[in-house]
Amino acid sequence: MSRFDVAIIGTGPAGLEAAITAKVRNKNIVLYGSKLLSNKMQVVDHPILNYLGLPSVTGKQMAEAFQKQLDEMGIEVTEQKVTTVYAMGDYYTLQLGNGDMVEASSVILATGVVAGKPYPGEEKFLGRGVSYCATCDAPLYRGKVVACIGGSKEEEAEADFLGEVCEKVYYLPLYKDEPSFAHVNVEVIKEKPKEISGAMKAKALVTEQNTYDVDCVFILRAAQFPGQLVPGLETEGNAVKVDLQMKTNLPGLFAAGDIAGQPYQYIKSAGQGNVAALSAVSYLDEMKRKQNQ
Amino acid sequence: MSRFDVAIIGTGPAGLEAAITAKVRNKNIVLYGSKLLSNKMQVVDHPILNYLGLPSVTGKQMAEAFQKQLDEMGIEVTEQKVTTVYAMGDYYTLQLGNGDMVEASSVILATGVVAGKPYPGEEKFLGRGVSYCATCDAPLYRGKVVACIGGSKEEEAEADFLGEVCEKVYYLPLYKDEPSFAHVNVEVIKEKPKEISGAMKAKALVTEQNTYDVDCVFILRAAQFPGQLVPGLETEGNAVKVDLQMKTNLPGLFAAGDIAGQPYQYIKSAGQGNVAALSAVSYLDEMKRKQNQ
Repeated sequence: MSRFDVAIIGTGPAGLEAAITAKVRNKNIVLYGSKLLSNKMQVVDHPILNYLGLPSVTGKQMAEAFQKQLDEMGIEVTEQKVTTVYAMGDYYTLQLGNGDMVEASSVILATGVVAGKPYPGEEKFLGRGVSYCATCDAPLYRGKVVACIGGSKEEEAEADFLGEVCEKVYYLPLYKDEPSFAHVNVEVIKEKPKEISGAMKAKALVTEQNTYDVDCVFILRAAQFPGQLVPGLETEGNAVKVDLQMKTNLPGLFAAGDIAGQPYQYIKSAGQGNVAALSAVSYLDEMKRKQNQ
Repeated sequence: MSRFDVAIIGTGPAGLEAAITAKVRNKNIVLYGSKLLSNKMQVVDHPILNYLGLPSVTGKQMAEAFQKQLDEMGIEVTEQKVTTVYAMGDYYTLQLGNGDMVEASSVILATGVVAGKPYPGEEKFLGRGVSYCATCDAPLYRGKVVACIGGSKEEEAEADFLGEVCEKVYYLPLYKDEPSFAHVNVEVIKEKPKEISGAMKAKALVTEQNTYDVDCVFILRAAQFPGQLVPGLETEGNAVKVDLQMKTNLPGLFAAGDIAGQPYQYIKSAGQGNVAALSAVSYLDEMKRKQNQ
């Protein structure tokens, strides 16, 4: 398996600036996110006044300016969700939404902030009846009954794959649009998830109205809570704990932008992406020096 | 005396972004610096590749983009050197190079990084035979002999003013250009300053070649060391100690950009300027709430 120097997760201003800076420093990078760059940015149609250098732009214009820069530098976005990042000692393994595994010497988290908090039981049963990746874990539940909480319309394809493999899928959309599935054994339940209950492993998804006995609850969010995305990562509320150099408690893993805490501002995110990338470069240099000794 | 909400010192990316953000938040601001914005930026003629949103610009083009934004927002640069910032309890007093005093409820330091370090004796004799402001302190040395260390050609006007008031001025340029003065009692000494010596107060300027007996040494740098600029400010080397919200140890005083430490990068400075301004806004709101109680 080829190993990237820097894996950057997120295509908002923090991730993009990190990618540009790491690329300028000749690092072998991979950038995971959306080809639309930032959904948040795309929908802003009032002028953004305080991004120094881009006077009074809409979110769309800002995204266009960013895209132009990516194109000029030959940086491509890889459209894959990263479901988990595992610290392996002197490198990291990233589990992707399509089930692939990828290795990187350093990682920059720039996935933005996730509203809300984990469901009660979610953290407790993770890996024991709670999963963030249908493609990865569906085969474990062949012929079983599962629940799937979908954060956005984009998750329906994954739920449909569950329908193909499992006996029965309860699908709980967290959005307004009407879900549609190819597999008739996917049943849409318009109830609000409240809790995942169980004993040694998860046994049921509890909503405000009912309790559904299931073997696994798949939770498909656009972005993971940082502590679930990277086991062992120190967090404070919804933010990753960082220092001024954007270092986390895990050597070689950095965070930038909204995921690193308030204020939630484009230019602050970009600035932190720059610092995170330079810290990653320093870390890689240091690793190389140690190997040469 | 009218009091500003936020005084911003420095017109590099950190100061400019802080000004824009504070202005967007309807604060009454003053921005001290150079109408050229950043000297460092003006001389960069290779393309700057990693400022997200401005693909491959020269320093000049970047400065033009920034100036355009200042113009659109009606932000003006006040061309005055700030020589000292005094913490007065719940506000700050800024001493300007022209001798004026200005008050502000909060201050953002964005003056960039100063190379080198203070001369031996400089900190010890500050206010007792060491001064950073000719206009302010020349009258104290009427008819006396003084030395003046000039960091750049722009300081010669201040040295000429010393020539008008004092008996004799030894002028030590730290730059290559030939200095020129209207007053013949300003003698140019091309020696490297080494130390300021004295007992209760400064008595001599020591160079590598000679010792000059003087009553005061005026040290005129483009930017002050942070600890000299703001008495009582906690520093670490040449950098101001800050947290992730750009707070210093002095409530209501914030720092951003190169003065807040490495890396020295435009977009990192802009990002920190944004955070500093929002922290200043929060601080002002908090002060107001307390006054209303």
